Amino acid sequence: MDVVKTVAEMKARSRALASEGSVVGLVPTMGALHEGHLSLIRIASGLADVVVVSVFVNPTQFGPSEDFGRYPRDLEQDAALAEGAGCDVLFAPSVEEMYPSRFATVVHVQRMSQKLCGAFRPGHFDGVTTVVAKLFTIVRPAIAVFGQKDGQQVAIIERMSEDLDLGVEIIRGPTVREADGLAKSSRNAYLSREERSQAPVLYRALEHARALYEGGERNALKVVEAVEECVESDSDAELQFVAAVDSKTLEDLATLRPGAMIALAAFFGKTRLIDNVVLE
Amino acid sequence: MDVVKTVAEMKARSRALASEGSVVGLVPTMGALHEGHLSLIRIASGLADVVVVSVFVNPTQFGPSEDFGRYPRDLEQDAALAEGAGCDVLFAPSVEEMYPSRFATVVHVQRMSQKLCGAFRPGHFDGVTTVVAKLFTIVRPAIAVFGQKDGQQVAIIERMSEDLDLGVEIIRGPTVREADGLAKSSRNAYLSREERSQAPVLYRALEHARALYEGGERNALKVVEAVEECVESDSDAELQFVAAVDSKTLEDLATLRPGAMIALAAFFGKTRLIDNVVLE
Repeated sequence: MDVVKTVAEMKARSRALASEGSVVGLVPTMGALHEGHLSLIRIASGLADVVVVSVFVNPTQFGPSEDFGRYPRDLEQDAALAEGAGCDVLFAPSVEEMYPSRFATVVHVQRMSQKLCGAFRPGHFDGVTTVVAKLFTIVRPAIAVFGQKDGQQVAIIERMSEDLDLGVEIIRGPTVREADGLAKSSRNAYLSREERSQAPVLYRALEHARALYEGGERNALKVVEAVEECVESDSDAELQFVAAVDSKTLEDLATLRPGAMIALAAFFGKTRLIDNVVLE
Repeated sequence: MDVVKTVAEMKARSRALASEGSVVGLVPTMGALHEGHLSLIRIASGLADVVVVSVFVNPTQFGPSEDFGRYPRDLEQDAALAEGAGCDVLFAPSVEEMYPSRFATVVHVQRMSQKLCGAFRPGHFDGVTTVVAKLFTIVRPAIAVFGQKDGQQVAIIERMSEDLDLGVEIIRGPTVREADGLAKSSRNAYLSREERSQAPVLYRALEHARALYEGGERNALKVVEAVEECVESDSDAELQFVAAVDSKTLEDLATLRPGAMIALAAFFGKTRLIDNVVLE
């Protein structure tokens, strides 16, 4: 596995791979790789000739009071894990490489970026779409794999990639969970022992929603309220939102149907966790 | 010359051209081609193996009270003119092709988009950068040629192309003028006979600025005021702005130097004209 640290070198690699006719698969990450990321790398490895994993803690998707400074970073460990999962090229640019001094461009997806998490993290998805647009033009992948755990993010990136004719097929990798149901997340490391013991309530609540739906309940409001009650009665978590939306368009749903996503965000102490289920 | 009307066909062409190793040059236009556009096509023809001219009256760069509806359209004449100047492929998509129903993405260049013309035409440059980003990803040109007459536009596109790693070299084609100095523009057709007779005052004023600079004047404010006085005393035009900025970064200049651009916008009746000179 090669490690590439400059945009110029990555572009040169992409050009060479394109001229060979190689199918390139990209897995964008912020590092701190866990089993969730590794599952995405394995998916890319099964679909592409060459797998590029980017590791870039993107400052523009963090709010001023968020955890950019303390976000976990360990490139050596990430490189070993990525290679083990099938990564061929690790692209790990510096902030200065990605955002030179006069950088001024923002890629914004209207409406979809401003609801759910976007309503509470202003500018977050602009940071995501801008850096992903850059990664797509630098790496020129045929496919890119994102986790369904960040369900709003992947829907927004699908929209952006299609709108800007980037020609990248977006693959959604299923959420990988701990044995007790907690979605794998680099931010789980922030949880205290007590918070960690309570955090699986999010998945239990979402599974309860799924069970209600499978039992015939179609009223989105009732299901959302059941999720809220489950989290609030079973934990000290502070819910930020629970919502029922279309998993592709993110439009609010009054009536549940296949493709509906029940998504939530909640704080355990200072740690913000998100999760979702998509109904079938 | 071939005429391509769908994004899918243009992308297929671009892929084929890339795999042949052809150097593609793009000249984006809104049609109503005049000698200014033709000069850009000739420049592209001299630099590229294959010249693509896009003709697309882009609705998102017009304000609600602007001239989108009455902007001149004549694809047959444009095709004949473009072919005569060296165009190989005319790309003329419909609005629905470029902006399908769920389209939601905006490419925005901060700061540079909000001054000069941008201060008076909110959203205009977002429309320009979004459509040009799409044209670049659809056509995948190595070079793209824009007129220096739209000096702010070309500076913003250079910034956007570099920021999003689009790999397109932006070429500035010199402003083409009528015999009396009026910059060629599709909007000159809106001028009444009286307005048309007065309109060359803009170029005379800019040439006066250049003469002051060449005579040793470096005070930008003095030169801007001299331009204002020249336009106001010699015509009925209503000036919107006169400014001295860096022609690459668009930063305001207090002191003139090589690369400074004196830019202005003025109304003759309801017709808004722009022009600029870059100092050497």
